[in-house]
Order: sequence, then structure tokens, then C-alpha cells
Amino acid sequence: MADQLFSYQQLFNFTSKVFQKIGCSDEHADVAAKSLLSADIRGIDSHGVARLSGYVRLWEAQRINAKPVMKVIHETLSTAVVDGDKGLGLVVAPFAMKIAIEKAKQVGTGWVSVQNSNHFGIAAHHAMMALEYDMIGMAMTNASPLVAPTFSIDKMLGTNPICVAAPAGEEPAFVADLATTTAANGKLEILQRKNLQTPDGWVQDKDGNPSNDPHALKTGGALLPLGGDKEHGSHKGYALGAVVDIFSGLLSGANYAPWVPPFPAYVPMPAQQPGKGIGHFLGAMRIDAFRPANDFKKHMDHWIRGFRSAKTIAGEERVLIPGDPEREMAILREKEGIPLLDVVVNDLNGLAQRLALSSLPQ
Amino acid sequence: MADQLFSYQQLFNFTSKVFQKIGCSDEHADVAAKSLLSADIRGIDSHGVARLSGYVRLWEAQRINAKPVMKVIHETLSTAVVDGDKGLGLVVAPFAMKIAIEKAKQVGTGWVSVQNSNHFGIAAHHAMMALEYDMIGMAMTNASPLVAPTFSIDKMLGTNPICVAAPAGEEPAFVADLATTTAANGKLEILQRKNLQTPDGWVQDKDGNPSNDPHALKTGGALLPLGGDKEHGSHKGYALGAVVDIFSGLLSGANYAPWVPPFPAYVPMPAQQPGKGIGHFLGAMRIDAFRPANDFKKHMDHWIRGFRSAKTIAGEERVLIPGDPEREMAILREKEGIPLLDVVVNDLNGLAQRLALSSLPQ
Repeated sequence: MADQLFSYQQLFNFTSKVFQKIGCSDEHADVAAKSLLSADIRGIDSHGVARLSGYVRLWEAQRINAKPVMKVIHETLSTAVVDGDKGLGLVVAPFAMKIAIEKAKQVGTGWVSVQNSNHFGIAAHHAMMALEYDMIGMAMTNASPLVAPTFSIDKMLGTNPICVAAPAGEEPAFVADLATTTAANGKLEILQRKNLQTPDGWVQDKDGNPSNDPHALKTGGALLPLGGDKEHGSHKGYALGAVVDIFSGLLSGANYAPWVPPFPAYVPMPAQQPGKGIGHFLGAMRIDAFRPANDFKKHMDHWIRGFRSAKTIAGEERVLIPGDPEREMAILREKEGIPLLDVVVNDLNGLAQRLALSSLPQ
Repeated sequence: MADQLFSYQQLFNFTSKVFQKIGCSDEHADVAAKSLLSADIRGIDSHGVARLSGYVRLWEAQRINAKPVMKVIHETLSTAVVDGDKGLGLVVAPFAMKIAIEKAKQVGTGWVSVQNSNHFGIAAHHAMMALEYDMIGMAMTNASPLVAPTFSIDKMLGTNPICVAAPAGEEPAFVADLATTTAANGKLEILQRKNLQTPDGWVQDKDGNPSNDPHALKTGGALLPLGGDKEHGSHKGYALGAVVDIFSGLLSGANYAPWVPPFPAYVPMPAQQPGKGIGHFLGAMRIDAFRPANDFKKHMDHWIRGFRSAKTIAGEERVLIPGDPEREMAILREKEGIPLLDVVVNDLNGLAQRLALSSLPQ
């Protein structure tokens, strides 16, 4: 099954039409399509258009409101809490990030915690919004529980990603975007398709024993925090995932820990809900609230070049800067198109048919 | 060699006198002693009084200014940059954290990046200053290069710790304090003393090959970022260490990356210095800048109790909350005293003799 190639614009038009069809305003549909496709263009295929029909199923299950009235429900000069009104996280997170950026313009930094939202795609898309303003951007989200903390059998946290994006001068921006687990769920799916085992430290089985089964989550197992086990620092990955949960869920009034709503619409909602929807945390720091932006960017260039010219271990060409692989993938895919697996193309065309929309271009 | 036990007060008096003797004001000497001993009381023996003579040697080498005039050199309503005037980080970091807290009182959050400082002890001590104000506290610092990024032979980053402290209600505070490496240097020292090998993923040798030699750093090897290798997510640990460096070093105008000054006074200063001294980053977020503090703390209690009651894997008693081991150690050591190795006691008594001070009490 060779992948089929689509241009960004083809997938954008298709995706935006789907969001319009379920009731999003034209503006929201475009914002959502842009958020979603930022994953595909950057090579994070697990978080992109392959999830589009999953979002629609959440809307069909009335877990997503296509016409949210997003509101600031509390604020100070440098902070805000946003109620996402059950909207698509793909729309709510950019709304909240804009508020963070506006606050940073006024008082140096802006920090927005979000309740009552849904999955927001990749964190990098939102954090990177700050870059054009010469700001450092940050984005985090909690997510449904797939991760067992150190010593736990129970799944208590999501893969809770953290992104920090910092501008450079002549060099491209630094963009660190990482799930706080050893490996994200998307990597398991790749191994499943290839019938390969997972490396040690990625998953455990239903009794909490180390496992190399990429299907472990389907039989009661769990993803492991970055580090894998205690001896290799999993208590640190667990602590970072917990921080994301506290900033995103507990500061905002969203759900948290094992009570975060699931992404698959067929999974029942948690019986107990200590908050509203899923939570995010967005931040923006104006560089010149600390030092002149040009000085900072000159030193970022120096930093980046220092790392790029570090001596590499045998067999490796270069030391990567966080964000390098995704940026290079984006350049490639903008030129050559975005490959989709047949199974994804079929799923999208089925979705189009169900919504009485045109199929993807051949 | 049985450890000798000392009360907190005995070590505090001794340490404060040493700092006075090298020229610190009484006030600074007490602040520095409190910062330093917060490590011993919490069981982080590698960062406590065992390093006191190291600080004195830095002062003797004129790398530490015992009478710093610390200054805010740039600020906005929510940010500041502090010049530590080559002071002890043990004094500079609390000074900067107080500014962060004051800003958070005014505009919701406060963020202070610090240049021209030195080692600040444990991050948790500074972050936890925010707790009594019903704020979330954050502290980071860069440090001299011991860590090889993913694919690198060269050591480009310090162990660059991150601490986040969040208040709870009836439960004790959440305190996550973690080096962004698989294991901190102090853990290697313990294995060296016991003649044990390091687990996989802690260190590499001078050629970048995986190593299990706890002495690897002495022969050109390096500590590894959290994750250990690429397959286990070391690019994430590397990215987190890099974020700490950017916030602490590049935002402030301190040194960064391989150019951060060393802790041992016998190691020459880096030839190139792109900034001043070591950098820190301190942050405070007022809880009620987001939601009423009591609501947040009630949910933190719920969060903590949820994790404590998670089902454990075989052989483990309970799932720990970040900060549990250190808090329990502090309770024990406040009651029973702080054990010091003979080699540390001898080193401290030698220091006392050299400075014409009384020895530690027998």
C-alpha cells in the first residue's frame, strides 16, 4: 500500500469543509484546519488529519460544541482563565494563546489556563504563534489517562506534552515539543503496523510488569513516563506530566488525572468529573521584557551553532537542535506534498460521503 | 566509617560562621546557610554542607564575591533581570525569588532571570518560597557542562534542574525537583564509593559509547540526558535541559551551554565567556490569579489522594507524590539529626581550622 500524496492546500480545503459541515463558522473551520494540519506538515502524522474523523465522532457524541462562545472567566494583568465552551481545542487553544500574547505585550508575560476544551492537536502549533512577536511561547495540555506513574498499575496521566518555542536570529527557531512519556502513542501504532516489539521502557502490561508488546494498552497495560522505570528516572517524567496536569487542569478548573475525558467517542465519559472538559496552559514571554530581542537572538544563534558543531558519536551525522526534524519535514512536505496511508484516505473519503462532501482529490 | 549525626542548628551555626568569615554580611551568611542546608535536611546530601569548602575555594579563587550588590537591571510589571554581582547563588536566588513573588502579588505572576550568579544549591528551596503566599513557585539554573546531548560526544549542558512547587490544602505541597539527566552527579558518587557499576543510560564514555563506569566523567565521558539514548527519549531530556539553559542563561545575559563556569575552583574558567557568571530563572504564579486558592487546594488534595490510592505494582508499597521522599527525610532529620560521612566532617573541620573557626561539635 503506497502512500498517496496530497498538497497542503488540498488537505486544508477538505478539512475546513468538514469542520464547516459540522457547524463551525468559516473562521473557526479555518483555524481548526490550520491547527490540525500543522501536525501533518511537521511529520507528526498521529496528530493530524488522520484524527479528523475522530473529532467528528466526538461532535456526533455531543462532546464537542461546534459553535463555542469562548470566554475569559477570570483575569489579572498577566493571567487569564478561558472557558472553551466545549469547543474544539484546535480553536480554543489559538484563542487562548492570542490572549497570552496580548498580555505579554502589556506587562511582559501572559499565562492562560483553559478549561472546558478538547484535544488541541500538537502543542508546537500554539507555542509557535509567539515567535513572530519576538516572544517565547509555551503550550501544554492534559489528556486522557494512558500513563502509569512510577510504581503504579493504574493509568493516572495523559501523555501531557510540553512545548517551548524560542526565536533565534539567522538560525531557525528552537522548538522543543515533547510528550512526557518515553514514547508517544503514535510510535506504538507504527510498531503495531510493522509487527515489531517496543523497546524496553515504553510500556508495561496490566500487572505493571515491563512489556515489549506494542498492543499492551489494549490489554490493560500503560505507557510509561519518560525514563521508563525508577532506575532510569521515570519519577522525573511522571513529575513533569503531573506539572502539565496541574497547570492545565487544576489551575483552570478542567478535569485532571484519570478523570480527563477520552479521545475515542466510543469510550464512556468518566463517571466522576472534578472539572470541565480538557485543560490547556498557554504562555508567552516577551524577550525584551528581559533583554533586547536582538541580543537574545544573536546569542540563540551562537547557542544553536555551538550545538550543531558539537562532535558526534560514531554513525551520527550531527547533533540536532530541538525542532530540526519537524522543520525539515515541513520544508519537504510543502514542496512534495503530504503522504497519507490508504487506510487514512479511505477513512477520510468515508467521512466525506457520510457528510455529503466531495472526496479527496485523486 | 559510621556517619556522625549533627543537629540542623549545629550545622547552620557552623555554616553561617564560615560564610561570615569569608566576608558575607550576617544576613547574607544566614540566607546562604539556610539555602545550603535545605539540601541536607531534605536528603540531597550531594548539594549541601558537603559542598561548603567548595564554595570557599571559589571565593579564594576570586570567583565569588562575598559582598555582592545585587541589582535589578531591567524590568517590566511581570519580569525582571537581576545582576547577582558574582554573589553566592545561595543568596542571589532567594533575592530574585522575592522579586518574582512581589511581582506576582501585583500582576498575577512574576518571572526573574538572573545573570552573574553562582551555584544556588537545590532548586526546591527557592521554588518553595512561593508556597506560603499561595503561589506556585518555579526555579531553574544552568550549570557547568557535564551532559552530552543526544548524538554528541561533547558535553554541552549542565544537569540543569527544574523545580515546580504547588501548594495543596490538607495534603503537603507538591514539589517536583529534578535534574534533566537520567541521574544526577551525586548518584554517581554514591556508586563510586560502593564500587558499583551504573545502570545503562546514565553515562557514556569519551567516545560516546554506552558505559557503566561511575568514573566515566573523569576519563572524558559524560552524563546523559533524561531518557539515556534516542530510543528511550534522550532528545526530550536534552530539550528540557536546553530550555533551562535558554531561560536561565540566554534571557538573562549569563553564560550558557559549554561556557558556564565550573564548580571546582581548580578547573580553569572557560576561555570564551558569552555572558556573566551562572544563570537562574525563578517564577511565581499567584493561584488566585487563576481561581480561588481554596478551590485549587481542594482539587490538589483530591489529585494527591487519587495518586496515593492508585494500585501499585508488585513489591511497591505506594505511588509517591513528587516531594514525598524529601519531605519525609526532612521530618526524620529534624528529629534525629543530619548524618555526615567522616570524610565530610574531616573536610569541614579542616576548613574551620584554615579559617580559624571552631570545629564542628563532637
